[in-house]
Amino acid sequence: MYRTHTCGELRISDVGSQVTLSGWVQKVRSLGSMTFVDLRDRYGITQLVFDGTADLGREYVIQIKGTVMERESKNPKLPTGDIEIKVAETKVLNKAQTPPFTIEESSDGGEDIRAKYRYLDLRRPPLQRALALRHRLAQEIRTYLDGQQFMEIETPYLIKSTPEGARDFVVPSRMNPGNFYALPQSPQTFKQLLMVAGYDRYFQIVRCFRDEDLRADRQPEFTQIDCEMSFVEQEDVLNMFEGMMRQMFKNAVGVDIPDPLPRMSWYDAMDNYGSDKPDIRFDMKIHEVTDLVKGCGFSVFDSAEYIGAIAVKDCASYTRKQIDELTEWVKRPQVGAKGLVYIKLAEDGIKSSVDKFYTPEQVKAIADKAGAQTGDLVLILCGPKRKTQNMLGVLRIEMGNRLGYRDPKVFAPLWIVDFPLLEWDDETQRFYAMHHPFTAPKPEHEEWFYSDKKEDLERVCANAYDFVLNGTELGGGSIRIHNADMQSRMFEVLGISKEEAEYKFGFIINAFKFGAPPHGGLAFGFDRVCALFGGQETIRDYIAFPKNNQGRDVMIDSPSEIDRTQLDELHLDIKA
Amino acid sequence: MYRTHTCGELRISDVGSQVTLSGWVQKVRSLGSMTFVDLRDRYGITQLVFDGTADLGREYVIQIKGTVMERESKNPKLPTGDIEIKVAETKVLNKAQTPPFTIEESSDGGEDIRAKYRYLDLRRPPLQRALALRHRLAQEIRTYLDGQQFMEIETPYLIKSTPEGARDFVVPSRMNPGNFYALPQSPQTFKQLLMVAGYDRYFQIVRCFRDEDLRADRQPEFTQIDCEMSFVEQEDVLNMFEGMMRQMFKNAVGVDIPDPLPRMSWYDAMDNYGSDKPDIRFDMKIHEVTDLVKGCGFSVFDSAEYIGAIAVKDCASYTRKQIDELTEWVKRPQVGAKGLVYIKLAEDGIKSSVDKFYTPEQVKAIADKAGAQTGDLVLILCGPKRKTQNMLGVLRIEMGNRLGYRDPKVFAPLWIVDFPLLEWDDETQRFYAMHHPFTAPKPEHEEWFYSDKKEDLERVCANAYDFVLNGTELGGGSIRIHNADMQSRMFEVLGISKEEAEYKFGFIINAFKFGAPPHGGLAFGFDRVCALFGGQETIRDYIAFPKNNQGRDVMIDSPSEIDRTQLDELHLDIKA
Repeated sequence: MYRTHTCGELRISDVGSQVTLSGWVQKVRSLGSMTFVDLRDRYGITQLVFDGTADLGREYVIQIKGTVMERESKNPKLPTGDIEIKVAETKVLNKAQTPPFTIEESSDGGEDIRAKYRYLDLRRPPLQRALALRHRLAQEIRTYLDGQQFMEIETPYLIKSTPEGARDFVVPSRMNPGNFYALPQSPQTFKQLLMVAGYDRYFQIVRCFRDEDLRADRQPEFTQIDCEMSFVEQEDVLNMFEGMMRQMFKNAVGVDIPDPLPRMSWYDAMDNYGSDKPDIRFDMKIHEVTDLVKGCGFSVFDSAEYIGAIAVKDCASYTRKQIDELTEWVKRPQVGAKGLVYIKLAEDGIKSSVDKFYTPEQVKAIADKAGAQTGDLVLILCGPKRKTQNMLGVLRIEMGNRLGYRDPKVFAPLWIVDFPLLEWDDETQRFYAMHHPFTAPKPEHEEWFYSDKKEDLERVCANAYDFVLNGTELGGGSIRIHNADMQSRMFEVLGISKEEAEYKFGFIINAFKFGAPPHGGLAFGFDRVCALFGGQETIRDYIAFPKNNQGRDVMIDSPSEIDRTQLDELHLDIKA
Repeated sequence: MYRTHTCGELRISDVGSQVTLSGWVQKVRSLGSMTFVDLRDRYGITQLVFDGTADLGREYVIQIKGTVMERESKNPKLPTGDIEIKVAETKVLNKAQTPPFTIEESSDGGEDIRAKYRYLDLRRPPLQRALALRHRLAQEIRTYLDGQQFMEIETPYLIKSTPEGARDFVVPSRMNPGNFYALPQSPQTFKQLLMVAGYDRYFQIVRCFRDEDLRADRQPEFTQIDCEMSFVEQEDVLNMFEGMMRQMFKNAVGVDIPDPLPRMSWYDAMDNYGSDKPDIRFDMKIHEVTDLVKGCGFSVFDSAEYIGAIAVKDCASYTRKQIDELTEWVKRPQVGAKGLVYIKLAEDGIKSSVDKFYTPEQVKAIADKAGAQTGDLVLILCGPKRKTQNMLGVLRIEMGNRLGYRDPKVFAPLWIVDFPLLEWDDETQRFYAMHHPFTAPKPEHEEWFYSDKKEDLERVCANAYDFVLNGTELGGGSIRIHNADMQSRMFEVLGISKEEAEYKFGFIINAFKFGAPPHGGLAFGFDRVCALFGGQETIRDYIAFPKNNQGRDVMIDSPSEIDRTQLDELHLDIKA
């Protein structure tokens, strides 16, 4: 028994008690005749009082025995702020070298040093809160789904490489030389097999792996909330997981989200927000103005497929310099616009960068179409339709950031529905599955799905859905194919040969021949769910031991070389 | 909405309701004018009645609409046995080929074919019950530990290879050519770092990986309940996890286990049961008879270090043939005895295989020492002490099996404590850690731990403990080293050089310098916990998609070859 209480537990009602506490020395203040020490553990901070001096360094681990006393000057910010411990006995359980950075709310350490000493960074309150939230959310998810008769079923991590989509991490098999396992990018096929096996409602909070070149804030291993249900239609899935999210928001962060959640079709999301993951915390929708501006002699617009505008509230006062900066911003390769047209609706009149091509009435009409009012700034981009909408979407988010419209403590979730089933890729001249090759076409679009015409296939929609929060996709899923012939047709449409399909997915096509139920499901990115619930953009603080952008864990120094004997056992050579 | 109710839900009070059910066709019985069909899902079976014939095959997936009727001949064995559905409308949702084996309580399919069609085998009730129990147990564990302020924290799967103990599975890093990650054999070092980081109480239900030559009933990937606590002594850990087990037994299988659980020292377990995982469902303890039998001219005993006996109840009637068979059994290499001596305490007198070396009084004294009574059979083995105790332990279990003493529905858990810290290996002439190199010596044995004498090191005990149930070790753990110097000393004792220790474990030795709290923990093998709670010896039915003894998943045909391009990207060649 190293303690009778934690450092977050004692209150005024405990005054007079003899207690034993253990924890870390957060702070030492010596007043000569007495010394105050803040003792810290996961549960809180308790003030200790020593007669005379105390030979204690920062982050020492100590055990003390003493008496709970009422404080003279109380600290209302601390739950233990009414009391302090008059220390009778002290034992140093472990000394500590001076940590390489401060262990406080915000640290003075750079990212690299904090990554190397992750176990010290993890002592800081924001990371403790982050991991506590993560634990809480996982518990809420499991409690909700268990209550809905879902069973958590573990699927294997050593599976089979199916080079479709992202790259697999592979694991050489010593017992089967020359053969490899692969780590799962998701348990997709296994959860579908569990539906074939009659488990009806499955979930798993599960690690997934992707050997991608790491963009910012991607991890080679990440965690999914993976779910699947049998005998369901889209409506059943959306209701079920809306319920889960509602309970998580309520119980973990005390927020009520709308009931029911808004739903938006993929086409509306693209047209109005230039994104399949719109941030609807603010309006500033995209409006097409093509009809209004074409054929008036402005060649840039005349030659464009699509011209669209957004109205930015109260920004008519933007200076020439600010507009120039914004123009440079949209011309960066990350956005890719050729230029930016503006209309300022100032109190003293309307002014635009295309005044010489349009009459004041025409300019006013454009501004009206964009929903602008006096005081607003209209920003216009043009080019190919989807690409331009996308650029306008990026610009919209940027303006939202600049104007403080994106408060991380405001939560605006919605469902995006009615995705196209297939995406045509000009470069490889083939279709790709927009979700994945197991997503079913909408029943009413089945005829198009079996058509040979590209334009038919392009308009097939899926009962696929994404859960979007504050401009981030937190998860998505679909109603699946449950029929062997339809699954074979899907592989055919995707240009996967019969032989290849058989080799890679034979077991699931085969499984569908033995009585597969209609089924569907979805998966949420749990790391990102945690970050957004915590009001953060980056996931790294919500993962106990993350990897850096080179996929390295710098704390344990991994990946690293392995022994020659290990390589020999695996029958492997490293090529120069 | 494919259904209004599940197939396990309808009762007599629902008679008259219009319902929609979906599920699998379990059985079709045609009576000419009407047809009875058993419709099955995860929740149960409901009887359907069709007018005339029904063109439905086994395992077809169907949806029916109809009216709930009271049955004429009720089936008290089924919760739905009072009712049946008069079917008005039928829709075949998916046809099914005839499955390659029967999908019933026990199947007619062999192990190989059931493994290949695992998704069909998983439809059978015993596997459904197994996975449901597994889910229930996981929920119980999480609820209990969450209630005790434990946080579930996910640790990484892509870590660093530390070739100590079993072999690691490794994962080549494409982004760091020639370098490898390793899959964790356990999150041991990470959970200790979480203690250093102040998380105080950690747990995780987590996959672990070991590239071992697979013995029967071992899997290359397996699941652990991994736990760690700070500021604790052994007593705190045992109480905490005894509580967890008590709740799991109570809530998942309705069994009360003793409070407190029995504890037995490792030395007592070895001496009395010849095993560090004794099955205490039955007595039949081992008794040393060395002093009684040595020096009487029987050279086999005279030259033995140790002679031990067990008394088998009511087996004095064993025939010559039975004794011979038993003698052959103990001489098999799996046991390794040189021979077997017996004493029969029959009603009509005592008879032994060593009557010519000992007087009747001496034989009687041996039998008395073994605790035998009239009617019993005493079995005696001799040889080196621990080895012979071990053989007697194996023989004891065998006799327990033969006599039906090992009822899987009886649960007799206990703690084994006071393990030796180190084990000397004659072959490699070095010490190995009995638990692992992070286990601390008992404080009162520290002097021996720092001694250079082999005999001192051999008698160092650890505050290490195993949780044993019915002759199987379900888990174990220890109080850890939390001091950098002591950890370095441990590596020195184990013959790990400073350089090697620094390379492999530098991060944890370093972490101990920044204020590591006293801590300890344990891990349970979750697959085996599930199997034993389910009253089974083998874990395979408690894993949704297990691998076979060659480490293969025959359903998905993994491991398998990968593309040359994948190998190239990884800078790997396969050696012939």
